Amino acid sequence: MDGHEGESVNVAIVGATGLVGHTLLQVLAERQFPVRGLRLYASERSAGQTLPFRDRDLPVELLDEATSFKGIDVAFFSPGTDVSRAWAPRAAADGAIVIDNSFAFRLDPQVPLVVPEVNPHHLAGHKGIIANPNCSTIQMVVPLAALHRHNPLRRVIVSTYQSVSGTGAAAVDELREQSRAALASQEMGGHVYRHPIAFNVLPEVDVFLEADYTQEEWKMVWETRKIMDLPDLPVTATCVRVPVYVAHSEMVYAEFERPCTVAEAREQLAAAPGVAVVDDPAHAVYPHALQAAGHDDILVGRLRRDLACENALVMWVVADNLRKGAALNAVQIAEELQRQGLL
Amino acid sequence: MDGHEGESVNVAIVGATGLVGHTLLQVLAERQFPVRGLRLYASERSAGQTLPFRDRDLPVELLDEATSFKGIDVAFFSPGTDVSRAWAPRAAADGAIVIDNSFAFRLDPQVPLVVPEVNPHHLAGHKGIIANPNCSTIQMVVPLAALHRHNPLRRVIVSTYQSVSGTGAAAVDELREQSRAALASQEMGGHVYRHPIAFNVLPEVDVFLEADYTQEEWKMVWETRKIMDLPDLPVTATCVRVPVYVAHSEMVYAEFERPCTVAEAREQLAAAPGVAVVDDPAHAVYPHALQAAGHDDILVGRLRRDLACENALVMWVVADNLRKGAALNAVQIAEELQRQGLL
Repeated sequence: MDGHEGESVNVAIVGATGLVGHTLLQVLAERQFPVRGLRLYASERSAGQTLPFRDRDLPVELLDEATSFKGIDVAFFSPGTDVSRAWAPRAAADGAIVIDNSFAFRLDPQVPLVVPEVNPHHLAGHKGIIANPNCSTIQMVVPLAALHRHNPLRRVIVSTYQSVSGTGAAAVDELREQSRAALASQEMGGHVYRHPIAFNVLPEVDVFLEADYTQEEWKMVWETRKIMDLPDLPVTATCVRVPVYVAHSEMVYAEFERPCTVAEAREQLAAAPGVAVVDDPAHAVYPHALQAAGHDDILVGRLRRDLACENALVMWVVADNLRKGAALNAVQIAEELQRQGLL
Repeated sequence: MDGHEGESVNVAIVGATGLVGHTLLQVLAERQFPVRGLRLYASERSAGQTLPFRDRDLPVELLDEATSFKGIDVAFFSPGTDVSRAWAPRAAADGAIVIDNSFAFRLDPQVPLVVPEVNPHHLAGHKGIIANPNCSTIQMVVPLAALHRHNPLRRVIVSTYQSVSGTGAAAVDELREQSRAALASQEMGGHVYRHPIAFNVLPEVDVFLEADYTQEEWKMVWETRKIMDLPDLPVTATCVRVPVYVAHSEMVYAEFERPCTVAEAREQLAAAPGVAVVDDPAHAVYPHALQAAGHDDILVGRLRRDLACENALVMWVVADNLRKGAALNAVQIAEELQRQGLL
């Protein structure tokens, strides 16, 4: 159909009208994913709209009891955890392979949790549902896995600088409206976050769980361990929301089994698929969110040795959370399924 | 004169028209520092203005060859490193005690580098110049020292979320103007930072030095060691600028000699002068920049144990960089000098 290596496939997107849904449509078109048919689903609030794909406008259908996924080859889900939990098994039972962007199935031992650059071998033997990891985790594990191949990873400490688009479209609006209000010396208001996010920094991403770590912080522990096949890896995360629209930044501190050098790490990262080394600080060349937004690569820079520990490195990792952190990784999973003859 | 415990003193402020200078005037008035006379100095660009202090408007005089510090008891300097380097020794030679906010003398072994809650004993034997530490360092060492008294500190990893007021008034204007431009879908422009700061995060604070760490990152290493009398303490810093006007936030990861618990740490921090524990995450109670701006305490929250290391804690530390990070700490040094009979 368009020269793509795989067979052309029937695709569904559940949660098509959200930020990730929109980005999925763009990424499928940009990468010339061999879409034969495309069906879009959303909740009552958004069904009835149309969304552009290539040169057509496609209707957004209501996801309800009448919906069938028979004939769908791959269904991208990003409607939120509850809807995924209810509907992904039905879609899989109808014969679709579900690539789910929610937290619902990520820790299920029956469900592969996949970043194609890191653990494509986990796809074999899937049972119809494949989980797309958390955005903050995806952008961290790709560079860590590239280094881990040469020198086993022993410990990770990470602190994040996460954009509001990770929360959704309402949070993007809230940052914009609060910023306008603050610049006009008016009250900021707001209902998405528990404190204003404009011109502020909030050390709260997702709900608080055990030991006063947030769910986002726990996700970075649990998901990193599963993706990297390192069930005991110590990961200590502090997840923080910053007033940025798109792209998450992370300080990643990584300790390895053996001494490492910045020069070796730079070489290993430069050779890693999906990673771009952006690291010439003297010329103001380092990754930043505005630069990463809209781009596919995970940008890595500010590479430094821990001067007190010859086995440890510090790096600054920035990626578009809607692309590599969500939609792009999901499409890459579908491409990898095709490559492995599983789709 | 006003019931303050110390003798009334003649005060000079060099760099009076900057953000720190303004804050010094506020803090001196708020704390009823026993000011007898007050002289304000600035460069040609700003001399000739008047600035309010208590119920008077004071003239800002030009700092030039004719300036004498004879009769001045204490001179607060915050004009920038070059001016401090040239003028602080002259003021000290004229008999003033200089409390200098620049980097010029901080690492000089003859010059005490003081945070009054941490190392007031370093003031004894000063030679006329006392250095006020870096803002990011001050807010970190106060809680660390409170914990270190009970359990020796062995290692620190910190990543910062620093506000633009740390750079100065021009950076505050740049954030405001770039934010306005971005909201109007216009080009952001800018000349203070090397990339736009509005709706962005920049892993660059101060110039790049050895091993690709910035000067701000090195300051957190060198100054923490000197203030805490721990010349070999491993400190690994990543300093990052965020689109916030006032107050720096920090993720501080601290490893101690012995196992520690969150409950003990919370008690020790709650009892520490200058620290307020703000830590009830279930009710959205944690420190954030908008909350800290304009306040004197160092706010500490998000207290957690590193679940993989029983000797390590993680905390979130937020403080007003113009107050505790600069002007307030300088005034507290003067108060401590009075308490010790040195002023």
